Amino acid sequence: MSKFPAEIILRNEHKIVFVVMDGLGGLPLHKDGQTEMETAKTPNLDKLVTENVCGCFDPLLPGITPGSGPAHLSLFGYDALELPVGRGLLAALGIDFSVQADDVCIRVNFCTLDKAGKVSDRRAGRISDKENKRLLEIVREKLVAPKGVQLFLETVSEHRALMVLRSDQLDDNVADTDPQAVDVAPLPAKTPQGEESYTCKVVNELLGQIREILAGADSAANFMLLRGFAKMKPMASFEEKWGCKAGAVAGYPMYRGLARLVGMDVVDGASEPGELAKAAEKHLPNFDFLFVHFKYTDKMGEDGNFAGKVAQIEAFDAAVPAFAALNASALVITADHSTPAKIAMHSWHPVPTLIVSDLARPDGVKSFSERAMSQGGLGRQLMTNLMPLVLAHAGRLTKFGA
Amino acid sequence: MSKFPAEIILRNEHKIVFVVMDGLGGLPLHKDGQTEMETAKTPNLDKLVTENVCGCFDPLLPGITPGSGPAHLSLFGYDALELPVGRGLLAALGIDFSVQADDVCIRVNFCTLDKAGKVSDRRAGRISDKENKRLLEIVREKLVAPKGVQLFLETVSEHRALMVLRSDQLDDNVADTDPQAVDVAPLPAKTPQGEESYTCKVVNELLGQIREILAGADSAANFMLLRGFAKMKPMASFEEKWGCKAGAVAGYPMYRGLARLVGMDVVDGASEPGELAKAAEKHLPNFDFLFVHFKYTDKMGEDGNFAGKVAQIEAFDAAVPAFAALNASALVITADHSTPAKIAMHSWHPVPTLIVSDLARPDGVKSFSERAMSQGGLGRQLMTNLMPLVLAHAGRLTKFGA
Repeated sequence: MSKFPAEIILRNEHKIVFVVMDGLGGLPLHKDGQTEMETAKTPNLDKLVTENVCGCFDPLLPGITPGSGPAHLSLFGYDALELPVGRGLLAALGIDFSVQADDVCIRVNFCTLDKAGKVSDRRAGRISDKENKRLLEIVREKLVAPKGVQLFLETVSEHRALMVLRSDQLDDNVADTDPQAVDVAPLPAKTPQGEESYTCKVVNELLGQIREILAGADSAANFMLLRGFAKMKPMASFEEKWGCKAGAVAGYPMYRGLARLVGMDVVDGASEPGELAKAAEKHLPNFDFLFVHFKYTDKMGEDGNFAGKVAQIEAFDAAVPAFAALNASALVITADHSTPAKIAMHSWHPVPTLIVSDLARPDGVKSFSERAMSQGGLGRQLMTNLMPLVLAHAGRLTKFGA
Repeated sequence: MSKFPAEIILRNEHKIVFVVMDGLGGLPLHKDGQTEMETAKTPNLDKLVTENVCGCFDPLLPGITPGSGPAHLSLFGYDALELPVGRGLLAALGIDFSVQADDVCIRVNFCTLDKAGKVSDRRAGRISDKENKRLLEIVREKLVAPKGVQLFLETVSEHRALMVLRSDQLDDNVADTDPQAVDVAPLPAKTPQGEESYTCKVVNELLGQIREILAGADSAANFMLLRGFAKMKPMASFEEKWGCKAGAVAGYPMYRGLARLVGMDVVDGASEPGELAKAAEKHLPNFDFLFVHFKYTDKMGEDGNFAGKVAQIEAFDAAVPAFAALNASALVITADHSTPAKIAMHSWHPVPTLIVSDLARPDGVKSFSERAMSQGGLGRQLMTNLMPLVLAHAGRLTKFGA
């Protein structure tokens, strides 16, 4: 596909409010053949759909189910298949760790090893945040990092922590040491190709020390499993890419981290629909583009809770008039991916998306649902086409060519 | 467009039945303005459409009419514009000739030359298969191939034959010698750029011998016209590409050859709808993916036989319950291209496609027709997107990224 011509981007006062209803789309579950969106009563969203334009967007490519990282990058207009974001990096961003270019970020699970050195509990009985902090303090104090490597250890929650190795000598080409099973020993650090690189040697040496230190810490958590080794890939910021000063309203760490990754200012941690709208009202004057993340639709979908997801869609609908009252040049209601309660996980099904704008060409669609919006005027598109469409509807693009 | 990330492919027990109703889509011909699909009574297909998801797929690019070779490659998920398959190669595959990497495959038409050496009949009066075999035996016996070139001549049918030149010194950059007209002389072998390469010299020398040999054979067929010079391009097998052990049920040589080209096992030569379903039932246990080819819709379309095509669609519909009873994780009903009886040839019109799966998101479409299915939830897509969508609906893809 041809590249978007950056020279047509305008910088002006036109505001964009970009709401992500995480995991919005679904599948029918009950005999009535209705999805979560079809079951939910959404008079406010239905009205906006009727008066504006909608469509369905494939997060990455048709058929591909995205993780949250690639899905959000795609929403923000990046080619996430070319620019993947590692889990370690997401974990670091999610706890406000200030990641630098040379950092290798690693997800840590405290685990329990039995006397034979085999994993008996991959989560060490889900130790408390407090115990997690106590143990990290002990490790930090005693662990000696190799020369030239700066080491950080940070609590995430329960058994989860973050390790960051800062050094221009290290890379992130390291497979997980978590065997993903019990009654087997943790894996030594190796490259995915099975080799022991310099980075692997450093990691294995550190793990040896950590095992000894934790053995004396009197805890169910007596070792660490490492996953998702990842460095930051260089990328243009959202503002460089789209000419919009961007802020983010998001309560959950991962989405705050994703916003930061593309250079957005994370300005608010609201989670409930009403709070999100209030936060948007407060912060919109300071930005061209405000990313607003609503998590609970996805959470209910992941739990397989069809009725709960319906209720969350309805709860969001109640806040829609407040979003509409912001009078942004473009109000977008979309999602990062579908999370049908039927399968209780992310899916590839395309994401129903609404653009509210004075420049929307109405398309005859009248209800906020996957089935109805698949007939929308925006058609079925790759998600990377959404940002140009949003900028156009906000009046932030000029003509290409004479 | 980004490349499909092969690492998300799962290998599991989920089965895919992939039915190609060759040349399915059509155009209105009569006053009622109904296409072949709209005219046909298809209660079984209509039911599957109502309960599942459909869409329309462009075989290559919008507006491009494909040959059978590129159309099938595209169905199988290959970029057929980048990876064309020459007709000579198709002819070879279609008669079970075991093509090797160094082979230049050439379609041969026996023709009749008049006394002035001009073509008077491009098909030599459609000689019988028997006469074809008799002549090839004579030519084989007397023809002397240049040193380092191994030569094969095989009967296809009537006036059609296959020539294969095996040599690492030869290439397939040779234009047809068939002038595509009568009352003109056959063309000498030249490159498309008009030059006489080493391969052209070899071919012209062979043609000189063939003319002398056939002059003494007492037949309407006294020369050969050569077309479709083609070597095999290296390509990943279907199993390498999509992680599916694949079998093919197909009665016609070309489709058997296309299946073999991508490494499918051709396990059955059935042609009638009921036989195809029985063959699918028999062979599905041995494969992840079963390609089932139904030829007669295309045959009737090519003949300009609107009513005949309607009847074939209805005949196929009668076998649909047997296909549905296979309980594959995904049952796909699609086509390689449209063949409207109105124009009696392949067309570029997009291909109506149905995916039957527990994971299908219903789209409100209720009948098996081009018009209805153009409103389907799969939207209008490039055909190369179909395989990822099929794998997704069969539960054979995992999430991309975290």
